[in-house]
Amino acid sequence: MNTQNTAESADRWVAYRPDLKILDCTIRDGGLVTNHKFQDDFVRTIYQTAVESGVDYVEMGYKASKKIFSTDEYGKWKFCNEDDIRSIVGDDPRDIKISVMADAERTDYHVDILPKEQSVIDCVRVACYIHQIPTALDMVKDATEKGYEAMMQLMAVSIVSTDELRSALELIAQSEAKGVYIVDSFGSLYSEQVRDLTKMYMAAMEGTGKDVGFHAHNNRQLGFANTIEAIIAGASRVDATINGLGRGAGNCPLELLLGFLHNPKFNLRPVLKCCQDVFLPMRETHDWGYSIPYAITGQLNQHPREAIKMRAGDTPDDYVSFYDQMIDEES
Amino acid sequence: MNTQNTAESADRWVAYRPDLKILDCTIRDGGLVTNHKFQDDFVRTIYQTAVESGVDYVEMGYKASKKIFSTDEYGKWKFCNEDDIRSIVGDDPRDIKISVMADAERTDYHVDILPKEQSVIDCVRVACYIHQIPTALDMVKDATEKGYEAMMQLMAVSIVSTDELRSALELIAQSEAKGVYIVDSFGSLYSEQVRDLTKMYMAAMEGTGKDVGFHAHNNRQLGFANTIEAIIAGASRVDATINGLGRGAGNCPLELLLGFLHNPKFNLRPVLKCCQDVFLPMRETHDWGYSIPYAITGQLNQHPREAIKMRAGDTPDDYVSFYDQMIDEES
Repeated sequence: MNTQNTAESADRWVAYRPDLKILDCTIRDGGLVTNHKFQDDFVRTIYQTAVESGVDYVEMGYKASKKIFSTDEYGKWKFCNEDDIRSIVGDDPRDIKISVMADAERTDYHVDILPKEQSVIDCVRVACYIHQIPTALDMVKDATEKGYEAMMQLMAVSIVSTDELRSALELIAQSEAKGVYIVDSFGSLYSEQVRDLTKMYMAAMEGTGKDVGFHAHNNRQLGFANTIEAIIAGASRVDATINGLGRGAGNCPLELLLGFLHNPKFNLRPVLKCCQDVFLPMRETHDWGYSIPYAITGQLNQHPREAIKMRAGDTPDDYVSFYDQMIDEES
Repeated sequence: MNTQNTAESADRWVAYRPDLKILDCTIRDGGLVTNHKFQDDFVRTIYQTAVESGVDYVEMGYKASKKIFSTDEYGKWKFCNEDDIRSIVGDDPRDIKISVMADAERTDYHVDILPKEQSVIDCVRVACYIHQIPTALDMVKDATEKGYEAMMQLMAVSIVSTDELRSALELIAQSEAKGVYIVDSFGSLYSEQVRDLTKMYMAAMEGTGKDVGFHAHNNRQLGFANTIEAIIAGASRVDATINGLGRGAGNCPLELLLGFLHNPKFNLRPVLKCCQDVFLPMRETHDWGYSIPYAITGQLNQHPREAIKMRAGDTPDDYVSFYDQMIDEES
């Protein structure tokens, strides 16, 4: 009998890790479902729910370049103008930290990321693919020098070779970033892979004081399970969205994550209320969460774009044709 | 860097375990959603899909006592008369094994389980709670003597104390059962707990030749993740249902499980076709799968019956009141 193991894991379920920080990215990742067009009331409710739930960060959207993206086509949370954020979060002191995401090569960061003293933003999360690491590191440097906490989000890790990943982590370890996230962009990682990656990232950041984080997608209903696994393996920052809102299959649902964490500072009830008041009606008009096309792209370790296209097209439920097509394209 | 671990888990994702046996319990667990009232066409399609998918077993329903349960109130798959099963599976030799579930204290097993030579059934799975172990062991003995493969399903393991579980496993180890399943009846186990339980069951069965199995529920979107974890920890029998059909939050979805397993004998495509042709329309009339009330009962380690009642009542989406009520009842 494995009594010692059982006792060890019992500890884990009963106690809590005070260092663990939760970021709610409902508005940011949910913006990918709506082209970042949200009513102010929606954004205010999500923000307020995040505050009441006790999570550490709330992410408002992207700082996308207006030279690249049209403000007609995209809503204001694609750009996160300072005034727009302030209209939601106000100017009073707050316990929750405000973050934005800045994509490498798609952000005019020198101009659009203001000096910290002019901004309510606390944290800039720089997202990049492996080939954009130098640009991303320059963005991290810029944000840090302006006074922000800067994080690295290395996307699509499931298609990065171990050697390239090792090199990237070495560069990140020497950077100004306060932390680095494992990003399962395609929802294709199994929990054991998440465990191995977390240990690899932790080892690479050892001695630097940098945190390791995890951002899940739910293509195979593994978003929550993988987030737990990252936490157990030592990650101290994890992302979630209310009711799992997010592009395609969505993200780790905040209501499940808070049910798992036992830190008394977190409150589940406001999140349940938001699921009921906001997300139930939203399901009538928007498609997100587990469905078979997203499971297929996850299984094939591919970007969900084909599945999103299919779900928005004339035959959203023709799973078999979609499977045949995706398998065919693989060869 | 954790290169060795990474290589070990890569092996796991690329190879496959030939000893692993899958049981499709769509008809049996799905019967709990419909009071076991299915059209013959439905049952035939599920059976045919199971055959084409290459799974090892297909479970047709319960062998419930007609003295306890009314044949007016329940459909025929609650009782699994020999003729009813034969009308679906025919008399020709088949590769797939046929199983039925027999609940302790709710089965007239001496009469209703026929001698094997009179039956197309291959396997009797005896389900019991911890206090019914002696009855269940007598049922296992009876089924074995009649010529069947008999399995033990010890339900609601998440509310059994470790000491009682140890005693139960010792008795099962000495029994005629060919295997014993870890049954997460409330969908409340985390993967680490599944790992510990699997190791505990494996240790208790060591040297007996008995298999350890796992049966998940999906209350917290952990059904698939927990099934993977049980497999990694050594379980060699796991259950799944097509599209996750099952009472409340449902079960581990077969389409996800087959996407994970790499044994060439399994085929995903017929399962996707069944999801599309059968389960998409069925979602218009039946409620199963992840929803917040089931997540709440899972989190509280309680039977889903209150959530099922709520979902079938006048306020199926009043998550906050349900949470308040469940928390209140806890105290």
